Amino acid sequence: MSIDTEPTADQTPPQAQPDPSPELDALYAGFERERLVPLWTEIGDLMPTQPRSGAAAHAWRWQDLLPLAQESGRLVPVGRGGERRAIALANPGLGGAPFATPTLWAAIQYLCPAEVAPEHRHTQSAFRFVVEGEGVWTVVDGDPVAMRRGDLLLTPGWRFHGHHNIATEPMAWLDGLDIPFVHATDASFFEFGPEQVTSTEVPARSRAEQLWGHPGLLPLTEVDRFAAASPLAAYRWEHTDAALADQLALEDAGHAGVVEPGHAAVRFTNPTSGADVLPTMRLEMHRLRAGAQTAERREVGSAVWQVFSGTATVTVSGTTWTLTDGDLFVVPSWAPVTVGAEQETTLFRFADTPIYERLHLHRATTTATATATREETR
Amino acid sequence: MSIDTEPTADQTPPQAQPDPSPELDALYAGFERERLVPLWTEIGDLMPTQPRSGAAAHAWRWQDLLPLAQESGRLVPVGRGGERRAIALANPGLGGAPFATPTLWAAIQYLCPAEVAPEHRHTQSAFRFVVEGEGVWTVVDGDPVAMRRGDLLLTPGWRFHGHHNIATEPMAWLDGLDIPFVHATDASFFEFGPEQVTSTEVPARSRAEQLWGHPGLLPLTEVDRFAAASPLAAYRWEHTDAALADQLALEDAGHAGVVEPGHAAVRFTNPTSGADVLPTMRLEMHRLRAGAQTAERREVGSAVWQVFSGTATVTVSGTTWTLTDGDLFVVPSWAPVTVGAEQETTLFRFADTPIYERLHLHRATTTATATATREETR
Amino acid sequence: MSIDTEPTADQTPPQAQPDPSPELDALYAGFERERLVPLWTEIGDLMPTQPRSGAAAHAWRWQDLLPLAQESGRLVPVGRGGERRAIALANPGLGGAPFATPTLWAAIQYLCPAEVAPEHRHTQSAFRFVVEGEGVWTVVDGDPVAMRRGDLLLTPGWRFHGHHNIATEPMAWLDGLDIPFVHATDASFFEFGPEQVTSTEVPARSRAEQLWGHPGLLPLTEVDRFAAASPLAAYRWEHTDAALADQLALEDAGHAGVVEPGHAAVRFTNPTSGADVLPTMRLEMHRLRAGAQTAERREVGSAVWQVFSGTATVTVSGTTWTLTDGDLFVVPSWAPVTVGAEQETTLFRFADTPIYERLHLHRATTTATATATREETR
Amino acid sequence: MSIDTEPTADQTPPQAQPDPSPELDALYAGFERERLVPLWTEIGDLMPTQPRSGAAAHAWRWQDLLPLAQESGRLVPVGRGGERRAIALANPGLGGAPFATPTLWAAIQYLCPAEVAPEHRHTQSAFRFVVEGEGVWTVVDGDPVAMRRGDLLLTPGWRFHGHHNIATEPMAWLDGLDIPFVHATDASFFEFGPEQVTSTEVPARSRAEQLWGHPGLLPLTEVDRFAAASPLAAYRWEHTDAALADQLALEDAGHAGVVEPGHAAVRFTNPTSGADVLPTMRLEMHRLRAGAQTAERREVGSAVWQVFSGTATVTVSGTTWTLTDGDLFVVPSWAPVTVGAEQETTLFRFADTPIYERLHLHRATTTATATATREETR
Repeated sequence: MSIDTEPTADQTPPQAQPDPSPELDALYAGFERERLVPLWTEIGDLMPTQPRSGAAAHAWRWQDLLPLAQESGRLVPVGRGGERRAIALANPGLGGAPFATPTLWAAIQYLCPAEVAPEHRHTQSAFRFVVEGEGVWTVVDGDPVAMRRGDLLLTPGWRFHGHHNIATEPMAWLDGLDIPFVHATDASFFEFGPEQVTSTEVPARSRAEQLWGHPGLLPLTEVDRFAAASPLAAYRWEHTDAALADQLALEDAGHAGVVEPGHAAVRFTNPTSGADVLPTMRLEMHRLRAGAQTAERREVGSAVWQVFSGTATVTVSGTTWTLTDGDLFVVPSWAPVTVGAEQETTLFRFADTPIYERLHLHRATTTATATATREETR
Repeated sequence: MSIDTEPTADQTPPQAQPDPSPELDALYAGFERERLVPLWTEIGDLMPTQPRSGAAAHAWRWQDLLPLAQESGRLVPVGRGGERRAIALANPGLGGAPFATPTLWAAIQYLCPAEVAPEHRHTQSAFRFVVEGEGVWTVVDGDPVAMRRGDLLLTPGWRFHGHHNIATEPMAWLDGLDIPFVHATDASFFEFGPEQVTSTEVPARSRAEQLWGHPGLLPLTEVDRFAAASPLAAYRWEHTDAALADQLALEDAGHAGVVEPGHAAVRFTNPTSGADVLPTMRLEMHRLRAGAQTAERREVGSAVWQVFSGTATVTVSGTTWTLTDGDLFVVPSWAPVTVGAEQETTLFRFADTPIYERLHLHRATTTATATATREETR
Repeated sequence: MSIDTEPTADQTPPQAQPDPSPELDALYAGFERERLVPLWTEIGDLMPTQPRSGAAAHAWRWQDLLPLAQESGRLVPVGRGGERRAIALANPGLGGAPFATPTLWAAIQYLCPAEVAPEHRHTQSAFRFVVEGEGVWTVVDGDPVAMRRGDLLLTPGWRFHGHHNIATEPMAWLDGLDIPFVHATDASFFEFGPEQVTSTEVPARSRAEQLWGHPGLLPLTEVDRFAAASPLAAYRWEHTDAALADQLALEDAGHAGVVEPGHAAVRFTNPTSGADVLPTMRLEMHRLRAGAQTAERREVGSAVWQVFSGTATVTVSGTTWTLTDGDLFVVPSWAPVTVGAEQETTLFRFADTPIYERLHLHRATTTATATATREETR
Repeated sequence: MSIDTEPTADQTPPQAQPDPSPELDALYAGFERERLVPLWTEIGDLMPTQPRSGAAAHAWRWQDLLPLAQESGRLVPVGRGGERRAIALANPGLGGAPFATPTLWAAIQYLCPAEVAPEHRHTQSAFRFVVEGEGVWTVVDGDPVAMRRGDLLLTPGWRFHGHHNIATEPMAWLDGLDIPFVHATDASFFEFGPEQVTSTEVPARSRAEQLWGHPGLLPLTEVDRFAAASPLAAYRWEHTDAALADQLALEDAGHAGVVEPGHAAVRFTNPTSGADVLPTMRLEMHRLRAGAQTAERREVGSAVWQVFSGTATVTVSGTTWTLTDGDLFVVPSWAPVTVGAEQETTLFRFADTPIYERLHLHRATTTATATATREETR
């Protein structure tokens, strides 16, 4: 479904309501007694002319988050029960719930040397994105997956997974899940696994990468071919970085490829289908040249962004922040967003778009154009 | 995703929490200041071992609803602003919101002779199911669709629609929509149309039925072939009734066809794809022979049932009701449900199953077997 | 793949060939010895600028076919070995092979009273279309399916099927299969079944119709839900006739629906998917008003048409015939075709289009417009 | 469709035929006059109990092919008209036609230094596989694609393409196309382009590789996202080799991944869909350890294999060859095939499987088991 023009906000006629009367009071009391609510008193809030999310546009700074994570590392044990030392972004508009948006969970997870986050599995889909550090292995259904700066790691729904840190330093990373969506739709199943990870091997590449990590090549064997989620457990920074650099090189050479001037972007996809890596979440990496500014976009559904490197000037629904490495911000449904780069800036983004696309509720619109002050490279 | 056994409820280990201390208090204050919430205090509620819906199993009786609808017909005008004289089922577990379940809206709509419910459109998908009466035409994008007892009428997302009553009697029917889901996911667009319906013709069959209502036959022309929703605006009782009767006749003759002994059921589908008629809702009609009893089933996602005719003994999560024509009940996610029939009983059911199937979050299990006391018809 | 303009036929440059020489002769002898053939001597025939089918446009008249079928009924026994008393159209351009086109088989099958065509199954897909008569039941995997004038009956690949005639008159009908395609691609499997049909019941409706023949309604049970072919064994004339009449009624009322002025058409589809009823063949019924004339069309792939009732003036690749009830004609790949009706005329058509669509080799173009002299009905 | 047991060959009953008589002669004369052929005289050949391909199992040796290609390079000009200096394998069972199998074309193409094979496009799908040499660039819709040993290059249907050799040595490679299939189904369109290639740039990587060649990463931009064929123009040997080596390493480590003991294999796929790279052809690379032997397999549809490196003992339908670098062999439909390796051997394979899979005509069976004499690597 796509639309060219959005309904203007002021078209709503006055909400016609019945005249107050004792009979009406009695009717409304009857509704209450019988567990009924009339549409005519609720329609404006229930069915707005365009999305009016309770979630707020908001940003969190890495320099504020990391010390709290470190202090948690000192005070809070990790292990069975609490399961993870994860600290969630709580959107100011969502009443204190640990939800970055109405559908998405975003948290900093923190693991000290020699610690083990025990194995469990759940129907919630999850990924990890590493903004700094290394030394942790995530074990997914027995396959150990190294975590390093810039890497994206997947733990699709209902796969056992645990983490353990073999380094001498603590490690922090971003966890993204669809917890709020699964919670709102009552679809959570959760099962505990072993307290220790099922493999303590620490290979540079996972078995998943050996099987599924070659461009355009799939194994003939039927092993691990899932419809629901990507079997490729890790998307390595070296590949993501090269893909973004290649798009900008194509632009330099006058060829198509970038999203808009000065703006390269890739989507992480399931190599067996070309679809999103997880059924409920879209994951992307964006790179803006110094001086580039994206068009203003609005999209049904919400997103969380994290600056990976560089400095970005971000405006969401009229609020502007200057953000740098590790900083995060959320974009509520249908909120206009622009991102500008003072220097070359790379950003990770995840969104709930597959939910809307698969249910035919997606809409997007571009309301202004991008600009790019191209670097004088020649 | 399918599972054979569900996790036992008592496997949860004690929720390990850090020891209280002034430092921990300071940490928690820091979380609050920075809009953060730790996972370790929340995980049990956020990620239960199996769905624990806030929604309650609940039933509403037609004999209680109809008088309130009639009184609304006397006191509450229908028209622009309130838009519809619709009275929604408000699940007792959902805090007074007009939501039958966390995803589904179910309401009685009531229209007096000569009244017009003005045209509008919205991204929410809608249908009408007629438990009694006739005389109203729903106009969908200019196509007038008669409403009669037993009929199912569709108004897919973003189609203009209004209703008008040409009969001498008021008419009441069931409206089903995905309002709570669209609200939770911030995907509502709404637009007002004309105050009068755009066609006052009252044909026995809609144009949609003329084009799409012939079994297995589709027009060559590309008119109206939608991926998202069925183009067939009306599913007539005569066809539904015949399909259910045919399944029971097959069973009598010793052939496959019924869901389980004594239990016939059809799904309303999009003839251009065989998929559900609406992207977020599954619609079905069930018929039980006298004496038949369904197996006990649990399914991720919620459902609303309405008895169309007969008398059913329904048990949801251990609560049992005896229900008859027009009565409604809701089944929360993963709640066990059985339906038994004292006489031949026909029930309409709608559920949010496509949401879970399309997002790979669906699970279902049958935990006991059906029984059928077959009528001695021979 | 679609194209706006086709390559002009005269663009081909002269076929450059190497100069004759003893060395070239030796080279060509080497090719022959080593089982090699050079492209440069063959390319014009192998890869023409547009399809140049060996098949000819050709028509067969029912009045010529039927007496030969009757005489076969007298002289040729039906039964195991020969399997069927079927007489195939042999396209004059295909060297005497029993192929209507390079991919399609079309035959008149003839069964005398009390005769049985024994059961067998094969990977070839098949259908029967009845231009006149009744009294034969086709038994498909044990389900007896009545054959009556105007009906379309399916026997998808690898289903056991036989025919038996319970009437006092012989019966003739059209058999359509993908025998030439399956032959060219070496995909034939064939297995003999019982010499008698496995059910001698003669119900008015098959079990398949009871389960799958209700518009937009599918059984919940998983019985018989095939991806490859429609589970609906019979498409009855009463439905096809009504669907065509409805399209013309919509046109009379000024609404969309017909293919072009005065030309109604339906496709027989699989109700579980909306796709073609058979994986390799598209089946359609067309109705032209008196005085209507179709646009000239060209399409990749071939088709066989049979006039069901009325009188049509048909032009294929410049040859024109006037055809009436039961007459057949073939349209080779990319041959231009127009059909005009002197009186209201109904035609059955089958084509190999799904092969091209599924393999991304399909193209079609309309090279002139339709005209309709609408009946003065008002 | 899958089968456990195949019909036994001797089940065919005697072909019952009508008794000769003057009347039968007259009937048959009538058939001939009216362009008709009865089924009962043809059924055994038309519809065999299992595929009986006219194509023969056959092998061609690189040492025989290459000198003839070299001699062609001396005697036959390349350019407009003949278009390509390509020498096709002509299956001995197919009457001298330049067809490796009834559906597949396989040819050695040979290009001398500074030569240009002019641009054209056609609906036939094509690929190049390089068994030795380098120095030619294929230009596909303006994108120059380097050809090097072990690389697979695509030219999907209806894309302009030409080749030019910038090296000081001639270059030979394998061309694979679906020419016979497109010919049999009358679907060929062909259009001439410029006589010179549209780009003489010689980059190491094509633009297609820059956009689509990163594992699991797709550009956000909609540029070049084709449903029908892979947008990735080149699959480089370094990736293919690594993917095969990784599977064998997984086997060494005791993990799943290989097809069968000692047998690694990858399929070349469309990164936007995970489907075969071309709509009518499946492309694969296989590697056998020294001493490994595949199971015996039969499959509907035909294949062409080329040994890339090593030495293989191949048996097709009972004929055995020992083949080495560059040697080719064909496997007709349903012919049993086994491959054994004396040393580590890598083989390229292409087949027409997508045709059968998409049309639901595919069957495969494994009739004996693989053996592997694993190398004593530890």
